Order: sequence, then C-alpha cells, then structure tokens
Amino acid sequence: MPRFSKAVLSLRSSEIRDLMTLASRPDIISFAGGMPGNDLFPVTAVEELFGGLDLKTKQAAFQYGPTPGLPTLLESLSGFLEKKGLPVKENRLLITTGSQQGLSILARAFIDPGDTVLVETPCFIGALSAFRACEAELMAIPLDGEGLSIERLEREIDIDERAKLLYLTPYFHNPAGLLYTAERKRQLIETLQGRDIPLIEDDAYGDLYFFEEDRQRLKPIKAINPEGIEVCYTGSFSKILGPGLRLGWMLLPEEIYAKCELIKQSADACSPSFTQVLADAFIRSGQIYSYIESVRLEYKRRAAAMVAALREHLPEYVKWNEPRGGFYIWLTLPEGADATDIMKLALQGGAVFVAGKTFDPDASSKRNNSLRLSYCNNTPEQIAEGIPIVADAIRKSCG
Amino acid sequence: MPRFSKAVLSLRSSEIRDLMTLASRPDIISFAGGMPGNDLFPVTAVEELFGGLDLKTKQAAFQYGPTPGLPTLLESLSGFLEKKGLPVKENRLLITTGSQQGLSILARAFIDPGDTVLVETPCFIGALSAFRACEAELMAIPLDGEGLSIERLEREIDIDERAKLLYLTPYFHNPAGLLYTAERKRQLIETLQGRDIPLIEDDAYGDLYFFEEDRQRLKPIKAINPEGIEVCYTGSFSKILGPGLRLGWMLLPEEIYAKCELIKQSADACSPSFTQVLADAFIRSGQIYSYIESVRLEYKRRAAAMVAALREHLPEYVKWNEPRGGFYIWLTLPEGADATDIMKLALQGGAVFVAGKTFDPDASSKRNNSLRLSYCNNTPEQIAEGIPIVADAIRKSCG
Repeated sequence: MPRFSKAVLSLRSSEIRDLMTLASRPDIISFAGGMPGNDLFPVTAVEELFGGLDLKTKQAAFQYGPTPGLPTLLESLSGFLEKKGLPVKENRLLITTGSQQGLSILARAFIDPGDTVLVETPCFIGALSAFRACEAELMAIPLDGEGLSIERLEREIDIDERAKLLYLTPYFHNPAGLLYTAERKRQLIETLQGRDIPLIEDDAYGDLYFFEEDRQRLKPIKAINPEGIEVCYTGSFSKILGPGLRLGWMLLPEEIYAKCELIKQSADACSPSFTQVLADAFIRSGQIYSYIESVRLEYKRRAAAMVAALREHLPEYVKWNEPRGGFYIWLTLPEGADATDIMKLALQGGAVFVAGKTFDPDASSKRNNSLRLSYCNNTPEQIAEGIPIVADAIRKSCG
Repeated sequence: MPRFSKAVLSLRSSEIRDLMTLASRPDIISFAGGMPGNDLFPVTAVEELFGGLDLKTKQAAFQYGPTPGLPTLLESLSGFLEKKGLPVKENRLLITTGSQQGLSILARAFIDPGDTVLVETPCFIGALSAFRACEAELMAIPLDGEGLSIERLEREIDIDERAKLLYLTPYFHNPAGLLYTAERKRQLIETLQGRDIPLIEDDAYGDLYFFEEDRQRLKPIKAINPEGIEVCYTGSFSKILGPGLRLGWMLLPEEIYAKCELIKQSADACSPSFTQVLADAFIRSGQIYSYIESVRLEYKRRAAAMVAALREHLPEYVKWNEPRGGFYIWLTLPEGADATDIMKLALQGGAVFVAGKTFDPDASSKRNNSLRLSYCNNTPEQIAEGIPIVADAIRKSCG
C-alpha cells in the first residue's frame, strides 16, 4: 500500500454517496438529497445575462482571477450582504469554491491533529468531513428545540483546552430543520465572549424563510457583531442561484482572512471566474432578489405539502418539527428504533431518505432513531405519494 | 492572536501577488503572468455550445454533480486522454477544481508534517505552496538541459527515508521552459522502479508543442506505464480552454484515487458543474482539437518573436533556452546577479517579469541569478517593445 498520510487514513467513505446513487433512480421518490429542485434554477435568466455582457467581461470569465474573488463580485456581494446588516466594511470577504471550501479552509487554518471542534449533534456532514480531514476530535453538543445546549457547551469549554472552534448552523439547520431562538443566540454570545474559540456561523439557508415575522430571529450573530468573539460567517450561492456554480463566501476578521487566503491560494488558486461573472450579473441585475422570493414561496408550498402528509400518515409516537424555512424536516423515533432498517423498508416501497446516524459526529454511536426528510426537490404530488411509504416503513419497523 | 494551526503558521505570503497587481497596470508590458492571452479564449464558440444544449443539460449545469466529476465529462475526457496514449481504463479519472486542486489533494493524501517531497529547482510555485501547506520538507533537485539530475535524485532517495513523493513538470516546464529528453525519462523510470515513491507528473502544457517531431518526446511517463511506479498524472483545461473554468484532472491508480476522492469530497464536494458542462460540450464538438491547434501556432509565433528580440538585445553572458512549446523562457545570469534588482530597473522602464528566486524550493536561498519571461500573453509588437527594456535593465545591473 502507498504510504498515505495519517490524515487521509482517518477518513472513511461516507454511505451517503451510495445513497445518492440510489436516490437518482427514476422509480424512487427521494427525500434524501439536500439539493434545490432542478426545475427551479434560473436557467434562462442567467443565459440572457451572460449573453448581454461585453466581450471583455466574457473573456475575463475564462481567465484566472484574484484568489479572494473577482473585484466586481466582491463589490456586488458586499451590497447584498450589507442588506442583511452584516459588517462587511469592518471585515474581509473571501469568495470560496462553494461554502464547503470555506469550511475546509477554516478547518485547515485552525486545527492541528487532535484538536477539538465543538459541533451540534446532529451536524451537517460536509462540516464533519472537513474537520475529520484535519484529524479533529469532534465533541458533539446536543440541540434542543431552541438551539445548542448552553449548559453542555459551557461544560465542554471548561474541561477541554484543545477546543479550537465552534461550528453552528443556526438558521434552518441541516439536518435538524431548526431555527435558533433570539434568546439562545444571546446566551451563546455570552458564553463565547472572551473564550478565544472562534465561531463558524454557517448561514447557507437563512434566505429561505417562510414567515416574515422570523426576520429578526434570522439576524446573524455576525451582524449582531458581539465584542470578544471572532465570528467566521459562511454563506453560499448554492441555495439562491445554483450549487453547480460552486460559489460560497466567508466574511472574516482581517487576521483570519489573511491565513484563509494563503490556504485558498494553495488549494485551488481562485474560484471559477466563469461562475463568478454569472453570479455578479445575477446580483447586479437585481434578479437575485425576485428569484429568492420565488423559491422561498415554492419551498414553503413543498414544506406545507410534506407537513400535511406527515400529519395524516405518521404514527403519533414520531416527533418532528414544522419547518419555518430551509429544506428539511427531522423525525425523531422512539428510543431503540433503527432508521437504517426503516430506510431499507421504504426503499422496497419506492421512497428514500437519510438515516439520522449519518449526521452523528460520534461515528461509533449505535443510536439511530432519527431521520432527515428533504422536501426541496419534490413536487407536492410526489410528496403526497412518498410520505405514506415512509410512514408504512416506520410502522413496520417500530410496530 | 487566534490559535492558528501549525500548518498555516508555516505559510508565508507570496510576493507574486503584489507582482501580479503591478503586472495588470496598462502602462507596463508584463512578461510576468503564466496565463493565456485573453484575446485567445474561445468565447463565441463556448457561448454557442451552451446555447445549443437541451434544458435538462443546462439545468444540470446549475446542480451539484458527483465528487469525481460529471459522468458525461469523464467519458469525453477519457476519449481525449486515450488519444494521448494514456492508460485511462486501467486507472481512475478524477475531475479537480483546476490542476492546482489536484496537487493540493495529492499533498494531503501523502504528506505528514516533516515528510520530504522531492522537487525540481526551479519549481512551479503552485506546487510549492500545496506541499508547504502540508508542512512538507522540500528537497530541491537541480535541472540540467535534459531534465532532473538523476545522480542527485538517487543520492536523495538513498539517504532520506521520509521522501514521500517526487513532483515533476517534464513537458515545457514552468518556469524553466524545458522539455525532458526521452533518455532522461528512461533513466528516471529506472531510478524510481520499486522505490515506493509515487511520481506526480504534471502535464499542464504538453499540448502546446511547436514542433511535430517532439510528439514522441512528449509521451507521458503515465502513458509509458512503467511497472513498479505509482504515477499520478495531472492535467488541466487552463491552457487549452480557459483557467477561469477551474477544471483539471488526475489519472490515478485505483487505491490512490479512492483516498483522493475522499479528500476532494471534504475540500469542495465537487467541481463546478457549470464549467464541466461547457468543457464537455467543447470536447464533444471536436472544437477542442482545432482550438489547441490554433493556440499552438499563436504561442509559437509569440515565442519566435521573443527569441528574435532576445537574440538581438541580450548581452552574451545571459544563457537561455529556445522554447519548443509552452509559455516560458528561462534566463540564467552570471553568478551573483540579482534578478530582483533587475526587475526594479525594468519596472522603471515599463516592463516586468518574475525573478528566479520565486521558484526556488529553498526559501532561504540567497541565489537569485535567473528570471522567467512569459510570452503567452503578449503580441509580437509588445514583445519587440518590452524585451529591450529587460535587456537594458540586465546591462545596468550586471554591467
């Protein structure tokens, strides 16, 4: 065997890849994927925007750009982020090749082998893989209905000197669907102040809220701009334009930015100019705002269809959240239930989802009594057809 | 200061960034950049190809793709690589976000802090930064007119058990402009067989040959397919379509591929589908072949203009190679010359290039008596105007 690095030997193949292959079968209704519906992409708009650009800009789309991003996109994106109240001028903006690259860069900037990263359980698998690739120890802090458990967070910080980072997805959490309360964010800020543990605030889904009244709750911690905490804010075009463009961003304090830029330089030199030119045109045309409004309504419609189907078909012993935005509903089954077994039964019936243990930071855990359903990529009709299959599988497995 | 990782603390900012900012000034003739000329990109062809795709394919351009690459591009690219004689079927192909990402992934797959990577001196700076980001020790092996010094390579391998990788750019080397001889490749293969030191063979420029008679010399070691050596072959669309697409590839033995796929998953999930769709259409239309032919002729014309200007203006004590392909001419000045001083003088005159020490794997070396001139991004007229400025600066500095 080749003499591989210790870091890569600690990485294991994720089951989710095989699942995605399954999920692409046309005879299966898939609630597994966390991708936007293909039918929702603004294909014509983007094609027309590109066609309308001058030759110089089109040529620049084929050329290398600066490592931090094309200046024109940095400028237009700054305007987009300032509308969210983010302190763009007091920080530095770095374009990344998807927000996954942002997480990977932050992991490499902070983690030495054996360092601890504090994460939510359940947790976004992309973040888990970015941290594991740097040989991090993952310390799982449970979520309740309001956000991360503050009591558990305080305890872990107090006992673990190697705690280097805290990673959170407070806005329509993947996979838990949760929107943090304002009060929980306040407590979090208090706990972190002066602790020298930078916060990675992942806000990939925040634009996809269903209720105007949640706007205040959606204010990023980065926008609250608390003293004594280094907040590394990550965002993405994946849910508001298209993941195939592979464009995300990080808003970072200067000192962290400087290190991240060096890592990005070594990782892929720069993000694709071609898709940066498209994203810039999409923002400058103003179409990004009407597009976000339209997908917000569509995902709300899909979520409502799933909520109605779950109400009608799920056994009462299943607990779940009503989504207020984003892509996901998280089902909690009775203790001892086996979501992988349920998934196999559902597959026989023609539907698929992701078993909860996939999102467990503790890879050795046997606990598997939860599952993630995505409604983002299904019509209400598919949802009405698929949910009874999932409900049947739950009944068969759990009684 | 935030508690950064040891790896990132060992990275230093590269001077080349400031240089590139300078080089983009319209009043400066820049021989600094290693980018294709903006005027050469196939803008109209690619736009028409995209317009002609069906809606489903256009939608897929906005969507996530599989981590190793879009199946349709893997298929068309396989055909392209098989024409070069590469053993595509006996290996695995992985699409990367530029070939820079390929180097970064290989570095992460093999290097533990303190491990040695054997590199050419001078060496491509992107490779140096990918290896340094993994805390590699770099062992510089000198180039002569035929390729890497075999004697020095054998000596280093024999004494250094931590030698983990050998990185080479045998075809129109960046920055040295060199094309390895067939004999030197044969000796290299002999030296490496059975040594358990994988070879990274970087072939970013091989398509840009100026002379039909070099075709045999350009046969990759990967295509020779020698027993007892793991060859990791990297290539790129950057010079044969456009670097702004951020697409490269690696052709890898199965076991190495599996590790690299895991790292890529954690690094950016997948390469941009949007530009993969474009590259696939460019290959399938056959236009990639005529395009390569056209840029090959154009770069040959630019190289000839630079050769003529150097012959006319350079002092006799400057040694340099006549390029047989690629983007670069490497000038070697007398011992003790200071290319950074020459660059400052040239800047005052209105021309710029990259000083040789930028490409030195030994960052502490004081030696700086060489420099890189690129002809890829200049018209023959600009070359005729700029080279006398460089020659004057050399005379002023070296006497």
